[in-house]
Order: sequence, then structure tokens, then C-alpha cells
Amino acid sequence: MAKAVMEFIGAFFLVFTIGMTVIEPGAGNLAPLAIGSVLMVMIFAGGHLSGGHYNPAVSLAVYVRGRLSVNDLITYMVAQFIAGAVAAGLVLFLKGFPALTPGARQILPALIAEFLFTFALCFVVLNVATARGTSGNSFYGLAIGFTVLAGAYAVSSISGGAFNPAVALGVTLMGLSDWANIWIYLVANFAAAAVAGLAFRALNPNDA
Amino acid sequence: MAKAVMEFIGAFFLVFTIGMTVIEPGAGNLAPLAIGSVLMVMIFAGGHLSGGHYNPAVSLAVYVRGRLSVNDLITYMVAQFIAGAVAAGLVLFLKGFPALTPGARQILPALIAEFLFTFALCFVVLNVATARGTSGNSFYGLAIGFTVLAGAYAVSSISGGAFNPAVALGVTLMGLSDWANIWIYLVANFAAAAVAGLAFRALNPNDA
Amino acid sequence: MAKAVMEFIGAFFLVFTIGMTVIEPGAGNLAPLAIGSVLMVMIFAGGHLSGGHYNPAVSLAVYVRGRLSVNDLITYMVAQFIAGAVAAGLVLFLKGFPALTPGARQILPALIAEFLFTFALCFVVLNVATARGTSGNSFYGLAIGFTVLAGAYAVSSISGGAFNPAVALGVTLMGLSDWANIWIYLVANFAAAAVAGLAFRALNPNDA
Amino acid sequence: MAKAVMEFIGAFFLVFTIGMTVIEPGAGNLAPLAIGSVLMVMIFAGGHLSGGHYNPAVSLAVYVRGRLSVNDLITYMVAQFIAGAVAAGLVLFLKGFPALTPGARQILPALIAEFLFTFALCFVVLNVATARGTSGNSFYGLAIGFTVLAGAYAVSSISGGAFNPAVALGVTLMGLSDWANIWIYLVANFAAAAVAGLAFRALNPNDA
Repeated sequence: MAKAVMEFIGAFFLVFTIGMTVIEPGAGNLAPLAIGSVLMVMIFAGGHLSGGHYNPAVSLAVYVRGRLSVNDLITYMVAQFIAGAVAAGLVLFLKGFPALTPGARQILPALIAEFLFTFALCFVVLNVATARGTSGNSFYGLAIGFTVLAGAYAVSSISGGAFNPAVALGVTLMGLSDWANIWIYLVANFAAAAVAGLAFRALNPNDA
Repeated sequence: MAKAVMEFIGAFFLVFTIGMTVIEPGAGNLAPLAIGSVLMVMIFAGGHLSGGHYNPAVSLAVYVRGRLSVNDLITYMVAQFIAGAVAAGLVLFLKGFPALTPGARQILPALIAEFLFTFALCFVVLNVATARGTSGNSFYGLAIGFTVLAGAYAVSSISGGAFNPAVALGVTLMGLSDWANIWIYLVANFAAAAVAGLAFRALNPNDA
Repeated sequence: MAKAVMEFIGAFFLVFTIGMTVIEPGAGNLAPLAIGSVLMVMIFAGGHLSGGHYNPAVSLAVYVRGRLSVNDLITYMVAQFIAGAVAAGLVLFLKGFPALTPGARQILPALIAEFLFTFALCFVVLNVATARGTSGNSFYGLAIGFTVLAGAYAVSSISGGAFNPAVALGVTLMGLSDWANIWIYLVANFAAAAVAGLAFRALNPNDA
Repeated sequence: MAKAVMEFIGAFFLVFTIGMTVIEPGAGNLAPLAIGSVLMVMIFAGGHLSGGHYNPAVSLAVYVRGRLSVNDLITYMVAQFIAGAVAAGLVLFLKGFPALTPGARQILPALIAEFLFTFALCFVVLNVATARGTSGNSFYGLAIGFTVLAGAYAVSSISGGAFNPAVALGVTLMGLSDWANIWIYLVANFAAAAVAGLAFRALNPNDA
């Protein structure tokens, strides 16, 4: 139960910060710095309680890597999606519905962009937060949070830059992304998570 | 006494940097980076001396969590508020009174914004600087400072982004916020601190 | 083999992020933050697997310092150059060929700029990731990644700011740099790497 | 001798990055990020060799704190000033003399601004790099580098933001500051260093 509450808190602040910094007046071209930072600080704060996933794709990757039970996987995902929806509601209360009409996505480029940086995100998580070779480090939150920062700067013009199905739900509810596009995130993010889990196992054969 | 001096130094540089970067010519949209950074460096420098609070709300949260005596709580708060006032005076000496008229705040949104990120700030402090599960880490200052960075980008257009009653006093003295609004900060920040303290205890039942 | 795959992954994300953030619409003047961050996170993720070079010049410097075999040196370089080329192809697929014509470089200034910051990069790598005096630290990725950030802000107007022959190959394939200039990077980067390796040995005589 | 070489390398890259990012076309309002970062990475790289001062004021503060001999103090300062001059010459070679005429400084505000952030810088150095209470940490470079970042955003419009006599020499040679103002930096920076050394001793009475 404490784990689910922590996952709710972390995913809530992540999606809330995304909405507040992306919808005008927001943080302009510094939104990715704010978003990467809030993810970092929530991981440093909650990692010792729940692992600090805040992302159904990350939870899936940790499950594939063998460090999360099926029960926890489902509990985490439910808490993360609820947090995304609650954060979206609060952003809309504070900011109103954004005037912009979300652009149509080019499907193949968006799938590639979401796949690549969700892979990077899950791969970084597994290596900095679950690998024997980096145990005891003090950089895990920085590494994970700033992967999202880099990805947001690199591909948000292509895919919006979610890398996280709970974020995809939140930004869709906020009117920043079209419902017709949400499958892109779900497919690309979960596929990338599974591949990252398998890649970690292949590259770390002695770290079961 | 050394603790009070350290709390004065840290809170002074925090409020001084806020004033110097927010009042034009300042740091523009990079002010939150400067502010989060100065908080970070003062925590890294003074954490081993006083705990590095620099914020009456953080001191209250640490008191609720059971790691600060009543005497120290009062001493810390006095030092922090004095530092906020002294910093405000020096900013006014260096920059002059800002030309802008502080905007009226919408009360409920401002209360929510201040509550949320002060909760995040205190919750992060308790988990990275007082929890058994993260003891000995080298990221506590980064995590705490960059929580303020994220909060400033996320909600400063709603509430001004103080998350700290000594900062609220300082920015009010500098003419960046109206005296009629200062209760918003005091209520929201201290309430958030108390809730964060209780939340920490509920989520860390074995870390007394 | 796992090492080569890791070097491919890291160099791929480095060059991919460079292309996606530098070609419009990209990250504007925050591109160096994204680039330094992605290098940082890939080093934190892969350092325990391959050392996290992602740069033929860094691999050469580690070889000169005596911590990489000739076989690994060749394998690493091949993986890094292939990664640079693959990343360039994917950037071109997602963004199209950039409209700009790469400027002619002034040769001596460009050689100096590339030499200096590639020296800094390799010197930082050797001291934070291979020296006895810093063993067990948690900052190696931050130090290395943000050396590239600083160098990109300092000299990209002079030399483009590659500091990495695989990056030079990638940006040339993307049309961001002219083929006539690629020798500048190869000469300056590899020379700087060799000098950094020798400088490390001279300054750390007891760290064989 | 290795110590002097390291101090030269670190101070050179600090002053070189300042010149290259401040003189147009430079890094615009992100120059402080580049400058704080290059200081950080040079401290992480060279701290184990020389202590990583790169600043005559910091060396003075470490001397007052009792961790530097008079001989090393003089050697370090000579290396740092030479590095500042060499870096200035190279910046001028690469960029040409800047067109701007350095503004007259208001003396008292400039003295205050330089004193305050040089005090902060030296105080942070002593607490994160020489104090028993923070020994073995992995954040010293980040804390020191980002103190300069915060100070540059806070007071560069008042004093130029040197916090370092070798930087003051370098920027004066580059034409970014007037020779008539250099005493401001020398007086304020060395005074702040001495006060920081005494403050550290007063606040850490058991850390001799």
C-alpha cells in the first residue's frame, strides 16, 4: 500500500509538472528541464520506498528484468494511471483547457521516437537502479530524470515526448494530444520496455 | 548558535538570489535554475552543520517527523525570517524598488499551488535527508534544490512560487508580492509541511 | 560482444540526440544541455558494462593510459563509427536533409577549439573514471557529460563542437558539416586524446 | 609541480570558457551554465591532484582554514594568474577584441556583490571539500561549480560576476572589464576569502 501511494505521488507530480510547464504560460523551452528535474527528485525521494517508477513502461521493464511481481506490476500501473488522470484534472482546473488543437502525428516517426527514448529510459533505469555493477550509487535519479530531459528536447517535435503511458493518458486528458494518437504511446512505450528488459538480461548475463 | 548562523547564511543567499534574479535585469527565464542551484549548494555546504533547512516550512516538517527539538524549531525559524528580511533589504539597496505592481492572486489556485510544491519540497527533504533508506547518499542537495526549480517553473505564474515562508516575507518586502497575499503562503506552506511530516511517518513506519 | 553492443547504444543515442536537437525544429540554444545530458545518462547506464566511451578519441585516450587492449580499441571504434552512421541515417529519415549549407571552417581556429575540448573531455574521463584517487565516485557521468555541454557552448561557433570522431562522421553524414572539414576533427580529436593520455600518466605517476 | 600544472589546466579552461561564452557569438543567457559546468568538471577531474581551486581567492581561503602551505599558496596563485592571462590571449586570438566598451561599475554595489558570492564560493569549497562532516561525498564539484552559476545569474549585472582574481585578470585582458575596476575584484575577492576561512573555523570548531 505504501508502494502504491508513493507511485501515485511520483506520477502525479510528474504529470502535473508536464501540464503546468507545457501549457502557456508555462516554462517555454525550459519545460524539459523542469520535467526531468521533477522526475529526478521524486525518484531520489521515493526510490527507497517503491523503486520510483512512476511509469507503467518502467514497471513493465522491471518486471521483465525479474525484479517486480505480477501483483505489484498491476498495482503500480493502476496507481500511475490514476495519478496521471488526477494530475490532468488539476492542471485543467488551474489553467483551463488549452486553446491549441493537438496536431496530427505522423505515425511511423512518432512510433520510432517514442520507442527509442522509452527504450533509453527503461534501459537506464535497469542499469542504474537494479544492476549489481552500479549498486549503491548516488546518481540513479539524475540519470533517469535527465534521460527524459534529453528525450524531450530531441523528439518532442516528432512524438510529443511522453515515453510513459501514464503521461500519455494525462496529456491526452489535458487536450495536449489527440485520443486518436494514444495507441501510438501505448504500443511504442510498452514494446520498448519489453525490449529494454530483454536487452538488460542479454547484456548482464551474470546479474539474475 | 552555529546552527542558527548557518540557517541565516543559507536562507540569506536563497532570498538574495531570488530577488537579484527575478527583478529586472535579472536571469529571465533561467531564474529558477539559479534559485534551485543556490539552494542546492547551500544545503551541500551547511547540511552537516544545521541540516540545511533555510525554510520555516521545512523546519516544521522535520519537527513533525521527529528530528528537530522545539527549541531548535523556534531558533531556526527566527534566523530564517531575519535572513529573508536582510536579504530583501540588500536587494532593494542594489536594485531599487521594482517598478511592477504585484498582481492580485486568485486565492484558491494559489493555495493549491503553494500547498502542492511545499509538500513536494518537504517530502523530498524528509526522504533524502532524514530517512534510513537513503542514508549516506550524495544527492540530497541536488534533490531538494531542484524540487524548487521544478516548482518554480510549474506554478510561479499561479502563486509566485515561494514554497517557503521566509521567501514569502522577503519577496513581499521587495515589492514582488502584495502584503494582502502573505497569509496564502503562511497557511499553505505550513499546512503542506505538516502533511508532509505525517505522510513520511505513514510511509516509513519502521523509520522512527 | 556485450561491450560492443553497449558502445553502439551509447554512441547511437549521443549522435541521434545531436542531430535531433541541432537540426530545426530542435532544442535551440538548449541543445548542449540535451547533448551533455544524454552522454551523461548513457555513461551512468553503460559504464559498468563497457566503460562508457562512445567516442573513438576517448577509447584512444584510455588505451594510451593503459586500460584498454588493442583488440577492444578496434572493436570499440568500429561500433562507435557504425553507431554514428546509423544515427545519422535515422535523423535524416525523421527530419529530412537540413536546408542549411555547412559553413566553411577557419582551419587553425577549428583545430585549436577541437583539440582543447577533446583534451578536456579525455582528461576528465581518465581522472574521473580510471584514476585511483576518484575510485567509487558517483559523479563520473555528470563530469564527462557536462564537459561536452561546456565545450559546445564555448566553441561550437568556431569548430562545430564535435570532440568525437564518431560525432564528426555523424554530423557530416547529416549535412551539418562539410566532408572537406572532417580531417580537422580526426586530427584534432585523436591528437588531443593521445596528449590527454600522456598528461594523465605524467600527473598520476603512481597510478599505473 | 603536478599540482601547479593541474591548477593551470583548471583555471585555463575556466577563463577560456568564460571568454568564449560571454563574447558574442557566445552562449547568451546560458553562459553561466557553461561556466559553472566547466568549473565543476575541472574540480571533479583535478580535485584529487591539487584540490581543484583554480582561483586565488579559494586558495587563500583554504590557506586560512589551514589546509594549504604558504609555498603552495604562492605556487597555486602564480599558476592561476598565468592561466588566466594565457586563456585571455587565446580567446582574443579566436574571437578578436570585443567591440563593447566595458561599463563603469558602481563601486559600492560591485564590492558588495563580489564579496558576497566570493564568500559563498569559498565557504562552499571549505565545507564540501575540506570538512570532516562531508568527507567522501560525490557532490563537491557540483556544489562549487553551481555556486558560480548562481552568482553569475544573480549579480553579473552589478559586478560582472568574477568571484575570482584570476578571472578578473582574464576578463580585463579580454577587454570585458576596465583596468580601472580590477582593484574591486582583488579587494572584494580576497577579503571574502579570508572571512570565509574564519567563518568556517568558527562554525566547525572541532574540525581543525
